[in-house]
Amino acid sequence: MSKLTASISSAIKASGLKDGMTVSFHHHLRNGDFVLNMVMAEIAALGIRDITVNASSIFDCHAPLIDHIKNGVVSGLECAYMGERVGRAISQGVLAKPVVFRSHGGRPADIESGKSRIDVAFIAAPSADRMGNCTGKEGASACGSLGYAFADAQYAGKVVVITDNLAPYPLTGFSISETCVDHVVQVEKIGNPAGIVSGTTRITRDPVGLLMAGYAARTIRHSGLLQDGFSFQTGAGGASLAAAKYLKDIMLEEKVSGSFGMGGITSYLVDMLRSGCFQSLVDVQCFDLAAVESLRTDPRHREVTAAHYASPIAKSAVVNSLDVVILGATEIDTEFNVNVHTDSNGIIMGGSGGHSDTAAGAKITMIIAPLVRARLPIISEKVLCTTTPGRTVDVLVTQQGIAVNPARSELRQRLKDARLPVKDIRDLYKMAIAVTGQPQPLAREGRVVADVIYRDGSLIDQIRQVV
Amino acid sequence: MSKLTASISSAIKASGLKDGMTVSFHHHLRNGDFVLNMVMAEIAALGIRDITVNASSIFDCHAPLIDHIKNGVVSGLECAYMGERVGRAISQGVLAKPVVFRSHGGRPADIESGKSRIDVAFIAAPSADRMGNCTGKEGASACGSLGYAFADAQYAGKVVVITDNLAPYPLTGFSISETCVDHVVQVEKIGNPAGIVSGTTRITRDPVGLLMAGYAARTIRHSGLLQDGFSFQTGAGGASLAAAKYLKDIMLEEKVSGSFGMGGITSYLVDMLRSGCFQSLVDVQCFDLAAVESLRTDPRHREVTAAHYASPIAKSAVVNSLDVVILGATEIDTEFNVNVHTDSNGIIMGGSGGHSDTAAGAKITMIIAPLVRARLPIISEKVLCTTTPGRTVDVLVTQQGIAVNPARSELRQRLKDARLPVKDIRDLYKMAIAVTGQPQPLAREGRVVADVIYRDGSLIDQIRQVV
Repeated sequence: MSKLTASISSAIKASGLKDGMTVSFHHHLRNGDFVLNMVMAEIAALGIRDITVNASSIFDCHAPLIDHIKNGVVSGLECAYMGERVGRAISQGVLAKPVVFRSHGGRPADIESGKSRIDVAFIAAPSADRMGNCTGKEGASACGSLGYAFADAQYAGKVVVITDNLAPYPLTGFSISETCVDHVVQVEKIGNPAGIVSGTTRITRDPVGLLMAGYAARTIRHSGLLQDGFSFQTGAGGASLAAAKYLKDIMLEEKVSGSFGMGGITSYLVDMLRSGCFQSLVDVQCFDLAAVESLRTDPRHREVTAAHYASPIAKSAVVNSLDVVILGATEIDTEFNVNVHTDSNGIIMGGSGGHSDTAAGAKITMIIAPLVRARLPIISEKVLCTTTPGRTVDVLVTQQGIAVNPARSELRQRLKDARLPVKDIRDLYKMAIAVTGQPQPLAREGRVVADVIYRDGSLIDQIRQVV
Repeated sequence: MSKLTASISSAIKASGLKDGMTVSFHHHLRNGDFVLNMVMAEIAALGIRDITVNASSIFDCHAPLIDHIKNGVVSGLECAYMGERVGRAISQGVLAKPVVFRSHGGRPADIESGKSRIDVAFIAAPSADRMGNCTGKEGASACGSLGYAFADAQYAGKVVVITDNLAPYPLTGFSISETCVDHVVQVEKIGNPAGIVSGTTRITRDPVGLLMAGYAARTIRHSGLLQDGFSFQTGAGGASLAAAKYLKDIMLEEKVSGSFGMGGITSYLVDMLRSGCFQSLVDVQCFDLAAVESLRTDPRHREVTAAHYASPIAKSAVVNSLDVVILGATEIDTEFNVNVHTDSNGIIMGGSGGHSDTAAGAKITMIIAPLVRARLPIISEKVLCTTTPGRTVDVLVTQQGIAVNPARSELRQRLKDARLPVKDIRDLYKMAIAVTGQPQPLAREGRVVADVIYRDGSLIDQIRQVV
């Protein structure tokens, strides 16, 4: 007995995919992913049209989607993040129907509750057996965690596993089980390893970034949360990684034994685990080879599903137990609302990912951003797009000072007592526009090209066409 | 944030349990389980009545259920196996409503499809953290796999985890995740380790058992299936374990590299893994300490859910890839139907467990049983209760000869060619009654005390009250 199917095309046919249906993909192969493009090319070749693509994230490598949209093969896009290449085309109006943006936690919640129906899920699997047990931990295209693919596998009508490493049955290291898999297709390559994970992730060398990182680490030190059991998430940006590095030094110096690091895992968090800063790592996605290797070999480093990471409808998710998260911003306004969906010109080049999920869960949500980027102020009076509501954001760290959400007066006092450069966010705003000048307000009358759904299911914002 | 609740009683109250609802339990603590009795005592103390108990299995230690039935606290029982103490009371008519017997694969299938609704699941967890992530692999009451508890955790309205080993959050070795847990209760002891798993499981020393085991191993050797990739399940009975031991010797001698061993895992299967007979073990339940230790430490030994093991509605389950299973019988009839629900007097003392699931999946289903047991013939013209239909049973091995299902003429020829003592099952039947005499036919006019649901959902048989 075997679910092996000769080709992607025959698996699509066997799945019963028809005009108007929804297909899904996960993004653990990141900018090295071949699978979304291979599948969409076959769908196009089969003459199937009017497909909605629900991908946990869309990267620049998925630019062929733009032609599929123009040709009528794709008529809908749903994702938690969209890179700049496809994002720019969407912002320019290539797709008639608004893109649906969710968060990394909201996506599996909507799939589980049936709000977001997937007809056929395509799972890129670095290793799989003939019955569909599969994992990201092994194989030439190893990407580590398959966290974002679990909901698709569990709830899609049909599930097709696509692998370039067919393992003997049963693959005991499976993450996703054969119980939900209909077809298995073996292909030459599912991705380009150089794009799947970075060889190494690097901390910033930029002095402004290092300054902000130092402020961030000191903010955590004096937050009242840095004690045994401390938990932490940070992104893979250069300043965030530098903050993790400084935080590690503080934790070792103060002999703080944290509970877990989470994320997007990088070598910096792996290093903190090995140094004893944390008892464990919780991993929904690996960012570099060190993270993949650690996930494969260290039982303290555990893969979790996107729902376990961040689902708002789970009985609990790990974000609910998170102490501190460090996040980025393309814009933050004086109400602490954060935009990571668009650049300052309103062009789509991102999305929440886990931004709004971790902000809602963490005891302290910290944004690191330089006051000015590309000659535009990071702080505005009103963000162009609200990704993460200001009520869930506690601290903004810039190179010119640290702003604390007025709702967190006790935290503000702690930081002042520690002689950190605490400033009012309106003063930071004034400092920024003193450098850049008051930016021209953007026209926002284009038609809606994207709906931004907050993790609770509400429409938190809309993104409009840029003319 | 924490889901810790002060007591079982307060967790029951918080769960909203009311008269007429269904509670569930899993049986990995086997005859050492304290949790079912503790919970039912609290339910009784709270004055809640008319409860249906859905337990994956009921052991002799659960005899207090009989008083709960008499007192009206429990009005329904559902399980896949029932030991003799509760079984005898049921057979004598203590419960007004028929017991619902399912198989180990049919139970999670009915839970998943909604046919079998669980209001509150109680999960006995040898280790758990404050948010409900839990595992059977660690702790003083370690039982290994929690395979049968996954469906309960995933689909019950409310889920209460009961542990005697509270681990720091997050428990990275979790089997069941916090996403589905409502309450966590810490108690002194969840079970008696001596009853949870045997210190060791032992092969038979009985010469009849060893003779049958030898026939069984030789049957497998000559079945045409014993080649690289071979897969195997056996029970923990003495003759079955002896068959595994003989099979190991054959596999080593013939340098056969099997794919997986499955089951109820014992030290004998662990030994076969370590000897290279199998690449992996697939574990829905541990029977002894060696199995628990292996599951905890050897990545080739993998816990699976009951659905992954055997669900008839999964897109596939491991039983579908199984070559040979060795099973027992209290009775087998001349049509190869097998009874493991009742003894030869019609009194309930067992149940399918995975019997009918593995029989349906395996390429060869072999029953080992002595021709005569307790002065009664094992073979009959019609079993008192059909657990496993004869169409899924291929071979009967007795000390007096081997009967092959007529539908498997090619297998029969292979065994004859190998000079194994192949006999017609009717001739074995005659040999048995020549020893025992023709048994008195049992009266079967009592009211129905149990419905036996086959894995496909059909009513395969009913068990009647014994007067």
